[in-house]
Parts: sequence; structure tokens; C-alpha cells
Amino acid sequence: MEIYCGVDLGGTKIHIGLIKKDGSIISEKTIPTHVQNGAENGIKNIIETILELLKVSKISIDDLKGIGIGSPGPLDSEKGVILESCNLHGWQNVPITSKIREIFPNIPVVLENDANAATLGEYLFGMGKNSKNFVYITVSTGIGGGAVMNGKLYKGSNSNAFEIGHTIISLNGRVCNCGNDGCWEAYASGTSLAKIASEKISQNNKSLIKEIAEKEGKKIDAKHVFEACRQKDELAVKLVKNQGYYLGVGLFNIIASYNPEKIAIGGGVSKAFDLYKKDIFATLEKMSLKASREICEIGVCKEKNCGMLGAAALCF
Amino acid sequence: MEIYCGVDLGGTKIHIGLIKKDGSIISEKTIPTHVQNGAENGIKNIIETILELLKVSKISIDDLKGIGIGSPGPLDSEKGVILESCNLHGWQNVPITSKIREIFPNIPVVLENDANAATLGEYLFGMGKNSKNFVYITVSTGIGGGAVMNGKLYKGSNSNAFEIGHTIISLNGRVCNCGNDGCWEAYASGTSLAKIASEKISQNNKSLIKEIAEKEGKKIDAKHVFEACRQKDELAVKLVKNQGYYLGVGLFNIIASYNPEKIAIGGGVSKAFDLYKKDIFATLEKMSLKASREICEIGVCKEKNCGMLGAAALCF
Repeated sequence: MEIYCGVDLGGTKIHIGLIKKDGSIISEKTIPTHVQNGAENGIKNIIETILELLKVSKISIDDLKGIGIGSPGPLDSEKGVILESCNLHGWQNVPITSKIREIFPNIPVVLENDANAATLGEYLFGMGKNSKNFVYITVSTGIGGGAVMNGKLYKGSNSNAFEIGHTIISLNGRVCNCGNDGCWEAYASGTSLAKIASEKISQNNKSLIKEIAEKEGKKIDAKHVFEACRQKDELAVKLVKNQGYYLGVGLFNIIASYNPEKIAIGGGVSKAFDLYKKDIFATLEKMSLKASREICEIGVCKEKNCGMLGAAALCF
Repeated sequence: MEIYCGVDLGGTKIHIGLIKKDGSIISEKTIPTHVQNGAENGIKNIIETILELLKVSKISIDDLKGIGIGSPGPLDSEKGVILESCNLHGWQNVPITSKIREIFPNIPVVLENDANAATLGEYLFGMGKNSKNFVYITVSTGIGGGAVMNGKLYKGSNSNAFEIGHTIISLNGRVCNCGNDGCWEAYASGTSLAKIASEKISQNNKSLIKEIAEKEGKKIDAKHVFEACRQKDELAVKLVKNQGYYLGVGLFNIIASYNPEKIAIGGGVSKAFDLYKKDIFATLEKMSLKASREICEIGVCKEKNCGMLGAAALCF
């Protein structure tokens, strides 16, 4: 039997699964990351969970053909080291693959950034199936993703390809967390949507958005804007329409650059795709490069486990 | 002996050569396109020139292993048809490969867009040598180019990848010939530089640019701006500085998207690279993604025959 293990390592939780090459899940478990307890403790928990999953599934360690890890970056994926990460605060220079190999000495262990792993998962088992040129974007706090070209995950020269959220869509535009002006994610990420909403409300725009956030006792986030939009709040409807426009412009740039057959959108913001998809398509409709636009299918990510499955698929 | 023929088909002239696989040129000739005389006449001239080059080089037709054509698009490269082209006015639905195959029945004939052919030429024989991930851009009337990824020319799903000149760098920005607002080429092409110069001069900005153009009896073009800049004309110096900034922003987007090892800049505007390169690098220096920026070498295209050589290399 050929079994692969996928580890989707996130800032709050870790999703671990044993899968077959066809993407079917044999067993899986999600554990908390407890970032504050340090990397050593986190790795210990990952190893224990893998051993536990093998045991409950009655799978011999000899059948395990690889362990793949998708992690927030930046990484040195060749050396298998997590260099540092905003999402894994305090985990610095963590040689995660060699640590895991201490317990699984005869098994290949692969580390790749989480966006690339999810891209591979969605490509093989989700919307990307049966395509050659595929793009996955995740729209949440920021905008990340990956590209499959000629059937192969494209990593770039030092594994930093597809930093698509930081491409400039507006000269001297909105300031991004990265320090640049006018990045795509400074317009179209969930964080930006919330920020733009807060700016508008502080300018005395009345809106349900604020009420919804206050009821939850939270700061305004993208979910509150979408919720208010569903309730036909005027400001929220306008903001979500703009969100579709901003996403549309960035998707156009992806189409112009990569000429993909399919683009899958994942991440928190994609959950409200029904609210702004007409604005995405209306934006694209008005733009050039008709031939490339028309062959490109755009939709929501179909494989909810793409992170874990893609991590495992790194070892295929 | 293995000999390849490259045909770099342009709107005004056609550069045809016989080459070896190492890129050395055995013989070459440039003929006028005479677009107005029609496609049939143009193809006849191409065929006659190939036969002439074979004859003067004393090469047997049996040694000719392929004929590659780089042509302005849009094309159907699979079927070997030039669909239509602004640069080859009146040439519509031209089955150029099958016409050439009538005379060379046993030789593979390949058609690809000229930007992709030049990319391949510069990759194999110019600045791209010994790299795996390489980008070529040509900056003249518009901005085009191509990308080599993992050592392979990336064409996209319907041969329309790398329409990089039409990626949006400024929301609601300058109007582009393609109809979009804010395309990179609406800011950084030679045509745009000339257009921005004319706009400024019509706003009563005094400048040498106008004098230089008038002396030549021509409308203002990019060359006049560069010439005036060399003569320290105030407006021209400012415009060229902006040109470096606009190019820098687009190059940043390429680095963020493709994470290449090298970017070669060709086309007419690249001839003045010395005038604005410091502004390109100053722009990049201020931006994020340091690791990707630092591994990427940016320079001027090194292989002046990259169009013809790359066309031949399509058959390798």
C-alpha cells in the first residue's frame, strides 16, 4: 500500500491526514498549534499525531511513502527549515523536516509554503483537475496563492514566485502592510475590505456594519461587511461591489500574465463569492484580451482539504 | 550536419538566417516585407531567400532540420496560421507553415509569436544563458515579451501568456490602445513616453524635445525625448526619470509574479537604458520582496539577433 501523510501547519491549528494517491482520506485529525509553546512542542505534537493516525488506521510505517508539510513562510524549502513567520510567532530557524526524520528515518519529508501546497491540492483534487495551467488564490488577511504551469507547480528561482498580492495595481495607491503603495492586497484582501469599511464609517457614514461588529464585541472585519450586505445595507452593498471590481482587476492581471485555464479562489473572502461575483465578471467583461478571458474559468475553491491534501501530494 | 532556419517576420523587414544548434550563423539576409504586396508575395520572397541562403552556403536541403517563424500575432500557432495583425496589415488567415511546407515537404515548419521567439533566442544565446527562470521584455511601441519557466518557454493555455504590457498598474489610469485604463504600456512604452512628452509640451512646457523633432520634420517620438535628455533638457530629464519609475514598477510586478533569475530588456527604448537605469533600481530598492529582487539580474538584451535565432530554436 502507498500512503502519504499531509501536514497543513497554520498559526492556530494543524490539520494532519493520511491519504492515498487518489486523494481519499484514510484518517485525519486537527490539533491546536499552541504557537506560544514553541516549535519543539509543536513538532512533538505533529509526530505524536502521525503515529496515532497510523495506529488507529492499522497502517504499517513501511507503507508510509512520504510526509509533506505546508507551512507559512518564509522558508528554506530545500533545507526544510522554517526561517520565520508572522503566523508562527517565535518559531525561527526551525529545521522541521530533519526533526521529523529523526522519528521517521526512512521516509522522505518535504517542506513547502502553505499557499503552494494548497495550490497543488486544489489542482489535483479540486477545481484544477484535468487542467494544465491553473492558478489558485487565497483571499483572506492577505492575498496569496500559487500557479501550476504545464502541469507542474511553479516555485520560481528561490521559491518566491506568485507573490501576487503584492503586485502593484495602483500607482501611489493604498499603503500595504509590506510597505509598498498600491498592492493588490491593499485593495482586495479581507483585511482591506474591513479597513476601507472602517474608514468610511469614521467619516460618518451610517451603516449596519458597525452595529453587527459591536453586537459581536469585535472590531469590524470582512465578515461583518458581507453580513450587512446581505441585509442590503447601503454602504456595505457599495463596498462589496468595489470588492468585486478590485478582485476583477487583479484576476485580469493573472489572466494577462499566466493565461490559465482555471482560477480557483479560496480563503475567507471566497465564502461570500455569490455577493460579488457579478461585479468580478462585469469588470472583466469591459477589459481587453477577450480570447484569454473567455477560455478561463473562475470559481470558488472546491476541495476544502486542499491544504492538507496538497501537502501530502508534495511527496507524490 | 544539423542546420536550422530562422525567420523573424516583421512589419517592415524579414530577417532570415541559417544557423547551427549552438547559435552560430552560417548565412543570413534581411529583405523588405512589402506588406502592401500581400501575404502570398511575402511568403514567396521568404522561400526564395531560404533557397538562396542554402545555395550560397552550399548546404543540402537534407541537412535542414527545421524552419521556425516568429511573427506578430494573433496567430493560431498549432495550425500555423497568421490570423491577423496590425503589423502585417491585410495579411489575414495566412496558412504560412503549410505554404512553406509545399516547397519543403519533409521539414518541420513551426510558427510562434515574435515575442516568444525572441524570448527563446535571448534565453538560449543571450542574457538568459545558464538560467532556469528567465523573462524577456521588449519595450517599444508597446510592451511585450515572454517567460521561460523551469527551462521551458511558457505559452499559456491558448498561446496568450505574458501579455504583460496590458497588466493594470494604475486603477483608472492612462487610457491604453487596448481600451483598458492603466495598463503598464500606457505608462512605460516608447509610444507613451512620446505621448506624455507631447501632452506636457502642449501645456506650454518649453523643451528641446520639440526642436529636435521639428528639425527631423517628425512627430515627437521616444528617441527625441532621450536625445533631449542627453542634452540636459529639463522636461526631458524629468520625463526619462519617470520612465525609469514606470519601468521599475512593472519590473517589480514581474519579479513578484515570476521570481525570475534574470530579466532582459529589449526593444527601442532599451537603447537608452543608461539614461534611466538608476531610476529603475532606485524604484525597486524602495519596494518589498527583497529576497526576490536581490537574486534577479536586470539588464539589456545581449543578442541582437534574438528574434531570428529564437525562431530557428523553435525547431530544436
